[in-house]
Amino acid sequence: MRIDINADLGESFGQYILGDDEKLMSVITSANVACGYHAGDYRTIPQAIKRAKEANVAIGAHPGYPDLLGFGRRNMEIPAEEVYQLVVYQVGAVKAFCMVEGIQLHHVKPHGALYNAAAKDRNLALAIAQAVKDVDRDLVLYGLANSQLIEVAKQLDLAYASEVFADRTYTEEGLLTSRQSEGAVLTNLESIKKQVYEFIFEGVVTTTSNKKIPIQADTLCLHGDGQSAYNHAKAIRDMLEAERVNVQAINY
Amino acid sequence: MRIDINADLGESFGQYILGDDEKLMSVITSANVACGYHAGDYRTIPQAIKRAKEANVAIGAHPGYPDLLGFGRRNMEIPAEEVYQLVVYQVGAVKAFCMVEGIQLHHVKPHGALYNAAAKDRNLALAIAQAVKDVDRDLVLYGLANSQLIEVAKQLDLAYASEVFADRTYTEEGLLTSRQSEGAVLTNLESIKKQVYEFIFEGVVTTTSNKKIPIQADTLCLHGDGQSAYNHAKAIRDMLEAERVNVQAINY
Amino acid sequence: MRIDINADLGESFGQYILGDDEKLMSVITSANVACGYHAGDYRTIPQAIKRAKEANVAIGAHPGYPDLLGFGRRNMEIPAEEVYQLVVYQVGAVKAFCMVEGIQLHHVKPHGALYNAAAKDRNLALAIAQAVKDVDRDLVLYGLANSQLIEVAKQLDLAYASEVFADRTYTEEGLLTSRQSEGAVLTNLESIKKQVYEFIFEGVVTTTSNKKIPIQADTLCLHGDGQSAYNHAKAIRDMLEAERVNVQAINY
Amino acid sequence: MRIDINADLGESFGQYILGDDEKLMSVITSANVACGYHAGDYRTIPQAIKRAKEANVAIGAHPGYPDLLGFGRRNMEIPAEEVYQLVVYQVGAVKAFCMVEGIQLHHVKPHGALYNAAAKDRNLALAIAQAVKDVDRDLVLYGLANSQLIEVAKQLDLAYASEVFADRTYTEEGLLTSRQSEGAVLTNLESIKKQVYEFIFEGVVTTTSNKKIPIQADTLCLHGDGQSAYNHAKAIRDMLEAERVNVQAINY
Repeated sequence: MRIDINADLGESFGQYILGDDEKLMSVITSANVACGYHAGDYRTIPQAIKRAKEANVAIGAHPGYPDLLGFGRRNMEIPAEEVYQLVVYQVGAVKAFCMVEGIQLHHVKPHGALYNAAAKDRNLALAIAQAVKDVDRDLVLYGLANSQLIEVAKQLDLAYASEVFADRTYTEEGLLTSRQSEGAVLTNLESIKKQVYEFIFEGVVTTTSNKKIPIQADTLCLHGDGQSAYNHAKAIRDMLEAERVNVQAINY
Repeated sequence: MRIDINADLGESFGQYILGDDEKLMSVITSANVACGYHAGDYRTIPQAIKRAKEANVAIGAHPGYPDLLGFGRRNMEIPAEEVYQLVVYQVGAVKAFCMVEGIQLHHVKPHGALYNAAAKDRNLALAIAQAVKDVDRDLVLYGLANSQLIEVAKQLDLAYASEVFADRTYTEEGLLTSRQSEGAVLTNLESIKKQVYEFIFEGVVTTTSNKKIPIQADTLCLHGDGQSAYNHAKAIRDMLEAERVNVQAINY
Repeated sequence: MRIDINADLGESFGQYILGDDEKLMSVITSANVACGYHAGDYRTIPQAIKRAKEANVAIGAHPGYPDLLGFGRRNMEIPAEEVYQLVVYQVGAVKAFCMVEGIQLHHVKPHGALYNAAAKDRNLALAIAQAVKDVDRDLVLYGLANSQLIEVAKQLDLAYASEVFADRTYTEEGLLTSRQSEGAVLTNLESIKKQVYEFIFEGVVTTTSNKKIPIQADTLCLHGDGQSAYNHAKAIRDMLEAERVNVQAINY
Repeated sequence: MRIDINADLGESFGQYILGDDEKLMSVITSANVACGYHAGDYRTIPQAIKRAKEANVAIGAHPGYPDLLGFGRRNMEIPAEEVYQLVVYQVGAVKAFCMVEGIQLHHVKPHGALYNAAAKDRNLALAIAQAVKDVDRDLVLYGLANSQLIEVAKQLDLAYASEVFADRTYTEEGLLTSRQSEGAVLTNLESIKKQVYEFIFEGVVTTTSNKKIPIQADTLCLHGDGQSAYNHAKAIRDMLEAERVNVQAINY
């Protein structure tokens, strides 16, 4: 059994501090670094990369919409052709910091509203995947399990990681329950641990309609903001270690 | 006799159009592409690169201070360590667009207030040159003739191009007369052509105090905004062709 | 017969110049001044206001979405409560420049995607109208004829101007044909003049389905970008003068 | 004896939270609200104003340089004429939110690098004071004791508040010791309380050279970031209450 644990970080901006990146590093195996559009700046990127390098955590670019005020969580009407360009821009910036640190950029995971839009819209997904492949065809594309991002990665013969969420509930289509719905988020640690266990050992998820459906769990997304989120993350990592799961980034 | 002709372009932003890049391409041999901090965005960069590629013009990144409102022309108190970072960020973004177009990024020329500050401040110059070298040690650093940027390029064993200005006057130190001084800019085409001729065929410049001092002219900076600037640029290019000067980018 | 002619201006930003505001001033009777979110900055606003004051043109604030890159033309998922706030912010900024010039701010016209969204979404329209009323209950709200903006202005007992477009075609609902459709824009000057004549003298518009439907024309939106747009604007103004229409801002 | 206690707040931006404004409200009598240039946005301003209104705290605008990345703490080369404009813009935005809440904007205090630059540069100070006066001649200008801001307020017959800092040390000129110098900041609570006592009851400050020089203390600047800063602020307020000092905003 094997899984990667990823988290978003490098999300501070100027004077504004967000998250406790240092603490998270001990729990995760891959880091999604904000690229300066929805969060992050030219100081946070190298800082996050240096920390990840020290902790032997795989480094990914985490491109988002150009919307600092909305933290990249608001939908924007940006055509696929431009999405290709904004991914190239952001991945290029993070890749350059990897170069100067003498390490490889490992993966790309779209952020927030861009991630969600690309999960459903094949053209957006294709634009992102093609941008990733064109910048560096060895990069791994992280995308929501069962989403268009995974489909297009297969189509383009691009390495990918099918992402699952420890604390989100799932529909029968194997997609995330909308945050607008009740019961979209699991808060009970035992339920979270049970879901993670099923992901990894059974390759399934129990949907909100109480069916078990297959799901591919290559990478597990955790959050580290706040003490309670961190505690959950730590508890999950500890469980995985206890169960002798090989916790490791893909192709790393 | 040989010289490169460079110009700044890709300086539009969103709805705002600046310059006539297409026209300029026929006159220059290397293009400095704005990177999205003082000008340019994720759409203008690939557009400029595609045009340069078609015109067989060498492509450079043109990083500036993060100041769109001031077009990177206002001094900012940014320490050398951060200047290193903001150069890596911007060069990385442009380099990625070169990668996806299958061409090499050729050079880096700092913009505006950053260019001027680095001409005098050795620490800033070192930060820029080191960033350029760390991202890609084959890049050529463009810097003002006789400035710290040229000094540090030599020190770091980085390829460089000593830049001269066709329409600016020079002090006895071989540096530019301040724009605040009267007579800082040559407007008469014959004077401009004479200065260019001296740069290339005599390796000197006639200072405002009427001395001839040696100057290394590897690349000539031209402007293309407005019809008259373009006409001057075209006239200079025509003169160079007529004099059988080899007009070509360095190491290209 | 009476009508106001309005145009958007003050849309430059930093080094970027957009439009020829000075020329437009002789054709219009009210000016919509960009407020710094989708266009404009703290320098363009006082400049536009001074020019309008000299030309005796009524001054309006032209608030838009916070999206300089997209010029406020991209839809943004901003809830009505926040739209209220961003209108207060932008109107307040422009109003302050009017105060220091010793003149009254006259009207508010939402810009671009915000204008279009509020035309259809009653909650957005209400948020905008309430913000305008709360900042200064004597302001005139400019909105698309037959749109929600006009409806809510009536409901809130706020002065309003029903806006018509000289060069856009209309549906049977009295709304604008989508720019995506063919024939959305009139380019022939005679057709434009005919449409303006009908607006003013007959109170109707001929729809794309060739029906005449009633429309309230309080203010006519013209564009001044480019020579041809300006020529059309001038021709329309000349026609109105020749027909002895009283060209004047509402409540001014 | 009477003094005002002011603090900077409303400094969050989008997703980024800075400071604990709610807690601070119980300690201060006037609040300086960030205006959206160096910090703050259209959501934080009305939130801060509502909180201040509830707590009966006087509301001020806190305009800064347009530099979110640098939090308005970096010097910018902006001429006095433009400083006038950027103050009008920012004060106007905050004033509009006061209008819609049915309360008066009370004062203006420049922020960070703008505050420091205007303390020494009479032209900048004049630009700020004139902007404040032109927007609303009843506003109180807050400026560093013994600085140009206080001088020009007197010259323009503008109400002012001479500001002192509880935890900063002073030179013989009655100005702040540079933060670059050792001993620029008092960290010991007893020393801080002693300095505040001297400000209020003796009208003096003991300089780093151990002289007592006169200083006018109309308003005391406190910080609330972090638990220790808040504890100091609370201790000072408690001391003032215990000494029966009338803690109250000027002209309020």
